[in-house]
Amino acid sequence: MPGIEEIRHSLAHVMAYAVQELYGNVKMGVGPTTDHGFYYDLDLEHRITDEDLKRIQDKMQELLKQKFDFVREEVDTEEAKQRFCDDRYKMELIDGILERGEGISLYRCGDFLDLCRGPHVLNTGEIPKKAFKLVSVAGSYWRGNEENPMMQRIYGLAFETPAELKEHVRLLEEMKKRDHRKLGRELDLFSLHDEAGAGLVYWHPKGGRLRVALEDFWRKQHLDNGYEIIFTPHMGRSWLWQTSGHLDFYAEGMFAPMDIDENQYFIKPMNCPFHIMIYRNGKHSYRDLPFRWAELGTVYRYERSGTMHGLMRVRGFTQDDAHIFCTHEQVEEEILRVLRFSLQILRTFGFEDISAYLSTRPEKAVGEVARWEVAQKSLLRALETEGIPFGIDEGGGAFYGPKIDLKVKDAMKREWQLSTIQFDFNLPERFDISYTAPDGSEQRPYMVHRALLGSIERFFGVLIEHFGGLFPFWLSPVQVAIIPIRTEHKEAADVVYTKLKELGLRLHYLERDENLNAKVKRAQKDKTPYILVIGDKEAAESTVAVRIRGNKQVNDVPLAAFAAACGDLQQSRSTRLIEDFSLHCTS
Amino acid sequence: MPGIEEIRHSLAHVMAYAVQELYGNVKMGVGPTTDHGFYYDLDLEHRITDEDLKRIQDKMQELLKQKFDFVREEVDTEEAKQRFCDDRYKMELIDGILERGEGISLYRCGDFLDLCRGPHVLNTGEIPKKAFKLVSVAGSYWRGNEENPMMQRIYGLAFETPAELKEHVRLLEEMKKRDHRKLGRELDLFSLHDEAGAGLVYWHPKGGRLRVALEDFWRKQHLDNGYEIIFTPHMGRSWLWQTSGHLDFYAEGMFAPMDIDENQYFIKPMNCPFHIMIYRNGKHSYRDLPFRWAELGTVYRYERSGTMHGLMRVRGFTQDDAHIFCTHEQVEEEILRVLRFSLQILRTFGFEDISAYLSTRPEKAVGEVARWEVAQKSLLRALETEGIPFGIDEGGGAFYGPKIDLKVKDAMKREWQLSTIQFDFNLPERFDISYTAPDGSEQRPYMVHRALLGSIERFFGVLIEHFGGLFPFWLSPVQVAIIPIRTEHKEAADVVYTKLKELGLRLHYLERDENLNAKVKRAQKDKTPYILVIGDKEAAESTVAVRIRGNKQVNDVPLAAFAAACGDLQQSRSTRLIEDFSLHCTS
Repeated sequence: MPGIEEIRHSLAHVMAYAVQELYGNVKMGVGPTTDHGFYYDLDLEHRITDEDLKRIQDKMQELLKQKFDFVREEVDTEEAKQRFCDDRYKMELIDGILERGEGISLYRCGDFLDLCRGPHVLNTGEIPKKAFKLVSVAGSYWRGNEENPMMQRIYGLAFETPAELKEHVRLLEEMKKRDHRKLGRELDLFSLHDEAGAGLVYWHPKGGRLRVALEDFWRKQHLDNGYEIIFTPHMGRSWLWQTSGHLDFYAEGMFAPMDIDENQYFIKPMNCPFHIMIYRNGKHSYRDLPFRWAELGTVYRYERSGTMHGLMRVRGFTQDDAHIFCTHEQVEEEILRVLRFSLQILRTFGFEDISAYLSTRPEKAVGEVARWEVAQKSLLRALETEGIPFGIDEGGGAFYGPKIDLKVKDAMKREWQLSTIQFDFNLPERFDISYTAPDGSEQRPYMVHRALLGSIERFFGVLIEHFGGLFPFWLSPVQVAIIPIRTEHKEAADVVYTKLKELGLRLHYLERDENLNAKVKRAQKDKTPYILVIGDKEAAESTVAVRIRGNKQVNDVPLAAFAAACGDLQQSRSTRLIEDFSLHCTS
Repeated sequence: MPGIEEIRHSLAHVMAYAVQELYGNVKMGVGPTTDHGFYYDLDLEHRITDEDLKRIQDKMQELLKQKFDFVREEVDTEEAKQRFCDDRYKMELIDGILERGEGISLYRCGDFLDLCRGPHVLNTGEIPKKAFKLVSVAGSYWRGNEENPMMQRIYGLAFETPAELKEHVRLLEEMKKRDHRKLGRELDLFSLHDEAGAGLVYWHPKGGRLRVALEDFWRKQHLDNGYEIIFTPHMGRSWLWQTSGHLDFYAEGMFAPMDIDENQYFIKPMNCPFHIMIYRNGKHSYRDLPFRWAELGTVYRYERSGTMHGLMRVRGFTQDDAHIFCTHEQVEEEILRVLRFSLQILRTFGFEDISAYLSTRPEKAVGEVARWEVAQKSLLRALETEGIPFGIDEGGGAFYGPKIDLKVKDAMKREWQLSTIQFDFNLPERFDISYTAPDGSEQRPYMVHRALLGSIERFFGVLIEHFGGLFPFWLSPVQVAIIPIRTEHKEAADVVYTKLKELGLRLHYLERDENLNAKVKRAQKDKTPYILVIGDKEAAESTVAVRIRGNKQVNDVPLAAFAAACGDLQQSRSTRLIEDFSLHCTS
């Protein structure tokens, strides 16, 4: 069987061929492969509809059955230009090929001829017939330039087997259902408001509950792991950004300055210069190090308008940032600690499939080579010690230091880069920070930036999609809903409410006298993990009837057992709900 | 006895008289009274030193003993100008008096003649002799204008009795000792860095510990009191500030805009427009109200350069902000709840002397008069219900709504305005927000801004000075220091450390083998509430020797009793340390 790239690329041609057969006068733009298939840009008067996609797909099946060969021809400039003289798109492409000094090749497949570098399958019969699908059509400007004509781009998916196609279509549907912007609206978690500034996130009360749970967890973990928590301003005078060098190497990512008293102030794109100012504020001995200073620091970075996407790409976000300042001798242990801490945090959210990328010294770099080597070795050793699969991007590090990026796979098998552990040989030099070594000399500390979740906003988006809004108990905005069936059950429901409130749980008490089903539906709308219904039997026996998210129901659960189970879930931060409460019955 | 104002004012003259007697050729600027005394601006070639102050004070005593009368003369313009023709200062003052159309009066006291409106004491003999003191001399420009000549301003304190003077001097010394900038440095709590931007606060690790304790407390209290916690961006596009009206009525307090993609963005001076955007994001029924939405929102306000002062006056600060949206029927209860909540929070920090100011409708105001009346009545009732002493500033409210300000007296009897409860009839109109009333009509909600601590930064400053750095246990950056006397006591000290760490306490474990006294001193430098010393006896008996802040020592405290006492202090948030651990001994 040919490779998937050839299959996809050949399908693009077959699709164009089918369009030519069905609609006649068509001109082609480009038709490359994509991660999961292919597309082709077409200049066609007829507006392609969903029904057309079906027709084109059927026609493609026919063409595959006809087993056409893909025939390559190499031609000279003159011949190429002659053949495509009435096709402005191909003429432009030919000019491009000539400019790059490349040879011109054509591929013929039945009656369809196209300018193409190849490679292709040998014969359309080699293409799996049930493993591709046309999925959509969208407008696209020729060469992505708004001043050029608008073409129609038809997207197709293509795999080696029908099973792969089916699985991918399922994941796509799942992704659509789980889109964090859609769920964010439905669950009333957050909003963005272009009129008040694009890419700026507003956390609604229910999103705020999740964030508070997340921040509380984050703070506690950091304090338990030897970090201190600091707070720094959101803006700094140009002196700070000149000293740090950000105005040279990061100006494009920064917002325009505010002119104040003949000075320029910049809203911060990073927290590091502020942390280093605190370091610089005092004298430090090797005995005091390492410092591990963490901040939930909200930063603002310029992104071009139109590039923002929900929580995933924003202009303002909160880094779960920390900086470690340590001695040469401490580097290796500190890096291992950070990596372990990072893995522990990521696993708490149910991310088990974690891999890494190590980026090493590029040609243009600051800092002594010996220091880079110490740093790179510590990163490598930590990855090896923890047994994390990793790739190495040789020379792909930032100019100021090597780094590890950690990626997790979510429930839809998409990879998200979350944690970063990044050395910095630049800022300590520029701010001239030091510590006193045992021999009394002043030494430059090693400085490491790290963010575990990356950005709280983006992480929130990833969590919403990963869990499809079915958050683990400890993160659920509403953890338990309490529903008395009628007014006479309110007294018993009050007891339940009080008991669970004592545990610090986030409750939704639907105490008003309304239709039971309406109340259950309201609670379900929030994807509440547990909905407790209290009627005659429950009131009489001090039990609760539990509707577990996902529609399981468990009756006659003693209140004490239910409360104990909730306590367990809070403590364990399990990503699964408890469905069997018998283990929590003490009597 | 004459009034204190006359005494102070007369002392200013007597001081000038003494300077004239001692140094001859002197010219006088102005010599008014101050809150606690008086000053006089002098144009004198001789540079006044601290010894001069002593000499002048002695001379003043002499003049008092000589019992000179204060004699008032009224003169016409011509005569006044003639008498002071060679004195540019007096000539300018005379012009000012004439411009205001006032009469000119002179006061003579012995050989000292001055242009003065009075009143004065009748005779220097009436002035209490031991109740005043010259305290300092400082440069000051004539009429406060840098282009005018620099004069020497001599400050004096003056009271009715020597006891009052003594107490005031004591408070001044205490204030100097407790200056939050000094203690902030000594305890390594925070810093500011003019070069990176004036008025922007950096919270160091130890300050961060206090802030985390404070924020955790604040969040828990808010969640327990029916608030939701939200998070909003630090900047907004001009649309937001035009809609809110801030660009009209608050432009001077705002930082200059950032120009982004041909739009102007402003860093936020207030959180309200962001909160109202969340309100506006959904449809709300009267059944959903009230909303109580709180945010620790960091805002940035322009202050003129040179006006900043430590944490007390800054350009960036975190408001413990909340907005309440409620129906007409809910106003009264909500205001009472807010006031109670506010009092409860302030009292937690040991502020017991609390008073209020109610500011009512000014002439230029927005919003229906009937709504103002509902609002004012609710504020008044709440103050009366809670029995808080209050004054009324009739017509002194902001144009957009009436408010209550709460003031507390600190340990040095200074008043600090902390909490504010402020109605807003402006923003709900401008953003056109509404809820659906029981009759199906759309109604405007009442909106209340409130901040309890005001600004976290300023409150931190107040706390530092109020406690003189001797923070209550629950707020102390280091709560317990643990010191093994020698290496062989480390094992026992580890047990202590582990036990206390389990309670989530903030510990300083001085485990290195150093001189005991040096270690104790280091722990004392942090004003650590409890320093535990562990030696042979303690190791053998599972006890600790406790050095309580303030130098009390209690030996043989069972570890379990000490831990229980710490747990109690965390829970109770008491502002006093436990000194008797016997109550916590269970066996």
